[in-house]
Amino acid sequence: MTLAITFDDIAAAAERLRGHAHRTPVLTSRTANERTGAQVYFKAENLQRMGAFKFRGAFNALSQFSPAQRERGVIAFSSGNHAQAIALSARLLGMPSVIVMPQDAPAAKVAATRGYQQGEPSSEVVLFDRYTEDREAIGRRLAAERHMTLIPPFDHPHVMAGQGTAALELIQDVMQAPGGGPLDVLLVCVGGGGLISGCAVAAAHLNRRTEVWGVEPEAGNDTQLSLTRGEIVRIETPRTIADGAQTTSSGELTFPVIQALVRGVVTVSDAQLVESMRFFAERMKIVVEPTGALGAAALFSRAAGLPDLRGKRVGVILSGGNVDVQRYAELLAG
Amino acid sequence: MTLAITFDDIAAAAERLRGHAHRTPVLTSRTANERTGAQVYFKAENLQRMGAFKFRGAFNALSQFSPAQRERGVIAFSSGNHAQAIALSARLLGMPSVIVMPQDAPAAKVAATRGYQQGEPSSEVVLFDRYTEDREAIGRRLAAERHMTLIPPFDHPHVMAGQGTAALELIQDVMQAPGGGPLDVLLVCVGGGGLISGCAVAAAHLNRRTEVWGVEPEAGNDTQLSLTRGEIVRIETPRTIADGAQTTSSGELTFPVIQALVRGVVTVSDAQLVESMRFFAERMKIVVEPTGALGAAALFSRAAGLPDLRGKRVGVILSGGNVDVQRYAELLAG
Repeated sequence: MTLAITFDDIAAAAERLRGHAHRTPVLTSRTANERTGAQVYFKAENLQRMGAFKFRGAFNALSQFSPAQRERGVIAFSSGNHAQAIALSARLLGMPSVIVMPQDAPAAKVAATRGYQQGEPSSEVVLFDRYTEDREAIGRRLAAERHMTLIPPFDHPHVMAGQGTAALELIQDVMQAPGGGPLDVLLVCVGGGGLISGCAVAAAHLNRRTEVWGVEPEAGNDTQLSLTRGEIVRIETPRTIADGAQTTSSGELTFPVIQALVRGVVTVSDAQLVESMRFFAERMKIVVEPTGALGAAALFSRAAGLPDLRGKRVGVILSGGNVDVQRYAELLAG
Repeated sequence: MTLAITFDDIAAAAERLRGHAHRTPVLTSRTANERTGAQVYFKAENLQRMGAFKFRGAFNALSQFSPAQRERGVIAFSSGNHAQAIALSARLLGMPSVIVMPQDAPAAKVAATRGYQQGEPSSEVVLFDRYTEDREAIGRRLAAERHMTLIPPFDHPHVMAGQGTAALELIQDVMQAPGGGPLDVLLVCVGGGGLISGCAVAAAHLNRRTEVWGVEPEAGNDTQLSLTRGEIVRIETPRTIADGAQTTSSGELTFPVIQALVRGVVTVSDAQLVESMRFFAERMKIVVEPTGALGAAALFSRAAGLPDLRGKRVGVILSGGNVDVQRYAELLAG
């Protein structure tokens, strides 16, 4: 079957992102190498604009809008990184954005999203009551009334292709690093599958031998279940600190890519996420959000199902660093 | 009068450090620019090896040891970043190191220093009782008995030249950045003056118009006082969270450089340091230790004495990220 994106889509996304997204650094740590026996390369998407890889997909999608679409603008539902990514990308491209968020979303997130919209007068955050109102219905109504284009957080080819540029850059940089070469394994966190599907397409094209593994929180292993059953499994909203992976299923477009190109999905506990976040603060001096630590937690905990990584060249995508600072302090303090 | 180092010393240090020190990234933040009205470039030395710029000076000094000196090794007194920098540099260069630390130094720091010494069998941490024993006497005795070379934390030309490479890289990178150019102002934290003296020599050579300003904690403004009086002023060990700036005076070699090339020294409060550390965690996703936040705190708080920075290109050296993770969590939580 034909997958939703090809490597050419990712290469084209990389061109669109040039000068707009950061080419985030690839960080290494002697301590991480010693602990794991592997040569580990961390792709620091927490240092991406707005603090997460989501900017890549959002900007790639919005920069392909027609003039008519640009004039009307974009709509997104999200209380997380996708919201901020869409708001920022829309402002950079000079178009209005409407972000639909639950009334009880953290005030800091609402404020950050409004901050990214600043200077775009027709942009707004629309709050809804998640107990009495249907978010999708609100979104559809607004989209219809205002003729705005809805961009979903993961299940869209332009979003998937944009996210794949993270792996493209990582693989290129590791190839050129002193002592570098092709990655043996690439560990990617999995929510709805936008990031891992893009990364898997990039890796498969650049080096067929690279094994791409997904990592989910234990409580939210819908993609792992889906791979086992061979069809998309839906679960209840999982209880985990990895808020970016609180998705209930992978997407109609992302899942076939995962099925075709991802070697498997492993899981980690919230405690393992916190331990990894502490490692990043203590040894690498970077703030990684819980979801962003999924890949590293699998590596450090030798998650069941992963191959032996000793002696291997392992890439890990640190997907983001957006965590409320009070919450972050609590998690570090334990 | 002749200063202790010239630009050529810094250029030579940069050659020695190539492939050993990280060329740390220069980070920018739209929010920082908006808050200050300046174009701000942060040199992320918290991402340097062992977590601070100190690696530069230590490695530069040790790599100039004679074969006889290398065989005997290096000795340093420090409970902070200098200890770890010497321990790591010595191991990389295959020589023994003895680090003299107070008995009541945080266990994590002793362990980290020992960790950096691993694989160098004659290396050790020597603990002393700071209430009954004289650290300098211990150091001198050990140096004499074992014929080891003592490397002080700042008042040494090779150390100063090594530290200057941080500014060299920053100035080069800002010159080449899109929208970049020569720095108008460079903000550097001041403890004993090793970093700022090296940076001032680099800046003076590369662009005479760059104003270099030092930043000290309010409680430990010895260098500010020294500049006013025109001679080195000694103070009691200051009470501040900026442990890297708890020096009691600048050095015999560093102070003349500061007098000749630094425009002035301003001060910030501990509360302003914490606020800046929070900014780095929240907006830039990096861990900066209290001392490392001095320059940024002066920028954000518009410290009295600084010129108007609006519309200026401002470099800020984030000197390090080594802060105990529990302590860090407490500071963030406030």
